[in-house]
Amino acid sequence: MAEPPKETPIPTDPALTPAAGEGEASQSKKGAKKAEAKAKKEAEKARKAAEREAQAQASGSGGATEDLAKENYGEITHTTSIPAPQIHLRELGEEHVGKTVKVRAWIQNARMQGAKMAFVELREEGNWTVQGVVSASAEGKPVSRQMVKWIGGLKLESFVVVEASVQKPLEPVKSTKVSGFELHLVKCYLVAPAPETLGLGLGAASRAVGSLAEEETKEEAGVEGLSINEGTPVASLATHLNNPAMHKRAPVSQAIADIRIAVEDLFCEYLRAHRFKKFHPPSLIGAASEGGANVFRLPYFEKEAFLAQSPQFYKQFEIAGGRKRVYCVGPVFRAENSNTPRHMTEFIGLDLEMEIEEHYHEVMHMLEAVLLHIFKGLSTQYREEIELVRSVYPSEEFLLPKDGKEVRLTFAEGQALLRSEGPPEFEDVKDDEDMSTPQEKALGALVRKKYNTDFYVLDKFPVAARPFYAMPDPANPEVTNAYDFMMRGQEILSGGQRLHLPHELEAMIRRKGLDPNQPGIKEYVDVFRSVGVPPHGGGGIGLDRVVAWYLNLPSVHLVCDYPRTPKRLSP
Amino acid sequence: MAEPPKETPIPTDPALTPAAGEGEASQSKKGAKKAEAKAKKEAEKARKAAEREAQAQASGSGGATEDLAKENYGEITHTTSIPAPQIHLRELGEEHVGKTVKVRAWIQNARMQGAKMAFVELREEGNWTVQGVVSASAEGKPVSRQMVKWIGGLKLESFVVVEASVQKPLEPVKSTKVSGFELHLVKCYLVAPAPETLGLGLGAASRAVGSLAEEETKEEAGVEGLSINEGTPVASLATHLNNPAMHKRAPVSQAIADIRIAVEDLFCEYLRAHRFKKFHPPSLIGAASEGGANVFRLPYFEKEAFLAQSPQFYKQFEIAGGRKRVYCVGPVFRAENSNTPRHMTEFIGLDLEMEIEEHYHEVMHMLEAVLLHIFKGLSTQYREEIELVRSVYPSEEFLLPKDGKEVRLTFAEGQALLRSEGPPEFEDVKDDEDMSTPQEKALGALVRKKYNTDFYVLDKFPVAARPFYAMPDPANPEVTNAYDFMMRGQEILSGGQRLHLPHELEAMIRRKGLDPNQPGIKEYVDVFRSVGVPPHGGGGIGLDRVVAWYLNLPSVHLVCDYPRTPKRLSP
Repeated sequence: MAEPPKETPIPTDPALTPAAGEGEASQSKKGAKKAEAKAKKEAEKARKAAEREAQAQASGSGGATEDLAKENYGEITHTTSIPAPQIHLRELGEEHVGKTVKVRAWIQNARMQGAKMAFVELREEGNWTVQGVVSASAEGKPVSRQMVKWIGGLKLESFVVVEASVQKPLEPVKSTKVSGFELHLVKCYLVAPAPETLGLGLGAASRAVGSLAEEETKEEAGVEGLSINEGTPVASLATHLNNPAMHKRAPVSQAIADIRIAVEDLFCEYLRAHRFKKFHPPSLIGAASEGGANVFRLPYFEKEAFLAQSPQFYKQFEIAGGRKRVYCVGPVFRAENSNTPRHMTEFIGLDLEMEIEEHYHEVMHMLEAVLLHIFKGLSTQYREEIELVRSVYPSEEFLLPKDGKEVRLTFAEGQALLRSEGPPEFEDVKDDEDMSTPQEKALGALVRKKYNTDFYVLDKFPVAARPFYAMPDPANPEVTNAYDFMMRGQEILSGGQRLHLPHELEAMIRRKGLDPNQPGIKEYVDVFRSVGVPPHGGGGIGLDRVVAWYLNLPSVHLVCDYPRTPKRLSP
Repeated sequence: MAEPPKETPIPTDPALTPAAGEGEASQSKKGAKKAEAKAKKEAEKARKAAEREAQAQASGSGGATEDLAKENYGEITHTTSIPAPQIHLRELGEEHVGKTVKVRAWIQNARMQGAKMAFVELREEGNWTVQGVVSASAEGKPVSRQMVKWIGGLKLESFVVVEASVQKPLEPVKSTKVSGFELHLVKCYLVAPAPETLGLGLGAASRAVGSLAEEETKEEAGVEGLSINEGTPVASLATHLNNPAMHKRAPVSQAIADIRIAVEDLFCEYLRAHRFKKFHPPSLIGAASEGGANVFRLPYFEKEAFLAQSPQFYKQFEIAGGRKRVYCVGPVFRAENSNTPRHMTEFIGLDLEMEIEEHYHEVMHMLEAVLLHIFKGLSTQYREEIELVRSVYPSEEFLLPKDGKEVRLTFAEGQALLRSEGPPEFEDVKDDEDMSTPQEKALGALVRKKYNTDFYVLDKFPVAARPFYAMPDPANPEVTNAYDFMMRGQEILSGGQRLHLPHELEAMIRRKGLDPNQPGIKEYVDVFRSVGVPPHGGGGIGLDRVVAWYLNLPSVHLVCDYPRTPKRLSP
């Protein structure tokens, strides 16, 4: 049985994605009141309709007053049993046609078609959806009008378990991912009900978040919620994040989360294959390691503790401890009051550190290799997820350098390029001053034009732009053996060779205006004083930035599972 | 060329593991002074010997005054070049015999044999060691007496790069892991020197830590450091942890670290294969979730933040967000002033959560299966590491139940066993009160005797012993669908089914004396109010406990890379 074809695909189906204030409660206070009023009105309407129906049935005009199917639907109890074999929607195949199966799923849509038939869309695991049909018209079936009505009235995003016969529809169902089969429901139990109105509907959750610029303005003005953008309801990033269950149920969110895990897994897989050993640096540390700026402090029994800003020192301790190559994946913390789409106060770092045998470019090339492994893994194994994200957040393919043609500029070459070919405001940039974000973006555009890549390395940063542990270039002590990696003109990795001899480290600490014996730094230098430590280097990658810039998303906050910013600590 | 066979293997070789105060500085203040005095004396002795030698050479009795090999040794510079191909000790094979190779390694031992020959032990990557020989006697070789002496005097744990010819010794070298080859050094450069005295020598670092009971007594008395136990120098746990580079260089430490990573990797591997998706819960949260006990608090811009005590709520949010099965690996924090070998203030949790289809035992069986996968993976793939650990920390093989014969007791059955067959002090234990650690251990011993397993499940904990989110057993509401997993009589996992209906959750929160609208709890319940959430359950495993109890180590602090306790925040 096929539902009459719909004219609009799911994300814009008005039944699924009601206007603001209808199926979705708006998040502004004004909107919330409106929605409440509307919901009340509708509940009243439904109550009256039910009364009329009951009267009609009592007068004998509408069918039996006794519900012959009452065992086949309703709220589940712990004695409810459905012996049919359970299947997952992704497994549905020709072999199931005509068979009775059990499916556990969310109600993505439910509506009556006349008085005797209801259609539901059932969703399972991300975006596997199938059409369900229930009809009281067929004789001999354990389906009553009351049952049909109850199913047709199920709230969106309720969780149900159904028993159904698998059938082939007369024509493919366009509105669901499973188009070649439909489920003819004979039992349906409510496992977990959804509320009357959703804080964020699946339709809005599945669309791009409202413009961040617009949102910042609103946030300043104290307004939050849905905005009507070219006639389509668009939810703000804040609305998404305040409704985590619905935000995460959107296929685009699950695709982004899947790509994020893939980046982490590909990182670990490549390093394991190259004899790197994983370890876990601590988050709680006894002293602020780099002068104390932007560090979270907390009372710790009778002392004070700090949250680690990076695993830097601990990666180096592992090398001092006899590991040749190490990596770690874990949270790092920055108490920086930066409210930009690039910043979070807690984020996952992908870090590695390794012994250098001859030249620090061994490390740089290892980092390039692991990132290229990640990019290639994504573009081959996650094509479907990438396309799904692009259908919501359009982007151009991420351009990679040709094999063996990696693009590596020195910092000085980058500044020279900016001076000669960049926008006029950068005609005086200096070789011994760090780059600003606008400079980075302008250089990214120049590199893309010149070398046809969105991924390149900026090497040999000036000493002034790097922390005290960076190794100066022995041939030119004003620059360091340190680099940043760029994606679409934005930094995603910082790294380099570290000073491994205690006297050189002490000298550089002093040159930076710090004291090698101050708390936090002393314990670090002590490790290099305590044993011989071979030359080594590494780098740290911001996981969420890699994903955000690879997919050209408007914010890292759309990538992180639970983003933390100066203004956001929940959910 | 073979060194005369040594009578003692490495860890007890007196040349390698000098008595306290010689090669190792003792950590007690008294010991430190003694060591300093001794070091001064020896430096003076060496200076005098060098003077004598110089005089002898000047008088023509000892050889040429000019050092013909001075380019072949000394401190490395950035222009030093050794073109020979580099090899790693683990790769050394017959094909290298007679070839000249480059090796980068630590000096594990160095000593003169007469005036013209020196022996070194070179160590690379964990416990790969090889014997190196350098001799000024052979004519035509670029080796001078001065060079031999310089090599023979290298400080232990310095890092060097050598050029050497690979030779087969006359008989196998017993003192090194590589016994079938030795290296005849022709060049040797110091890359990173070690200090005159080590804070912890490799010998003591490679032995078991001093008795923890003894250490606690000392700690109370304010004494720390090496203790002489049955004639062998033994370093305390504190000494180990205060000397991270040397502690970690010990083969036993590296084996424990390797086993720890293996547990994590096996956990992730099994879950990925069973369609679990990884995610990252936040560490910074906006409210103390379970009443505020034992939680770290910190200033967060204008607000207050808390460090997550578990990923519990976030795992459930993922299920609410449409994931069927999730897992995470990351730090959790407990502000508990517990100074025991089982506790840390920060530890890595291995957590999972999954939808329940029919019965919560699906989750329990999944957790059993992942742990059995880990145990089997360890016993087959990490046999060598386990034996190495056992050579230092003896233990009996970890007993597993036979396939399909997993041991599962209810809490009530466990208490009954304790009452009937346990020690007299447990003859009155109650079914509705939580177990103490001594009870757990006594029960573990009884289960081992009765069922021949060190791994079993205790199911159906009383409501009083579980948090508010635990699902009561519908057939007996005084107990929960919640369990602990035990290893060698100690808990390593807590888990169970969670309440998924908001009204049931609110009722239980009230029954526990909490307010469903208090900060931290409201945001949690709101998620279950916002959408329908299917039944689900999970569990959390303490990574360090699994490793410690599997290997029967005296403390989790020997497992964690950088343990954090109320008294320890560094390194």
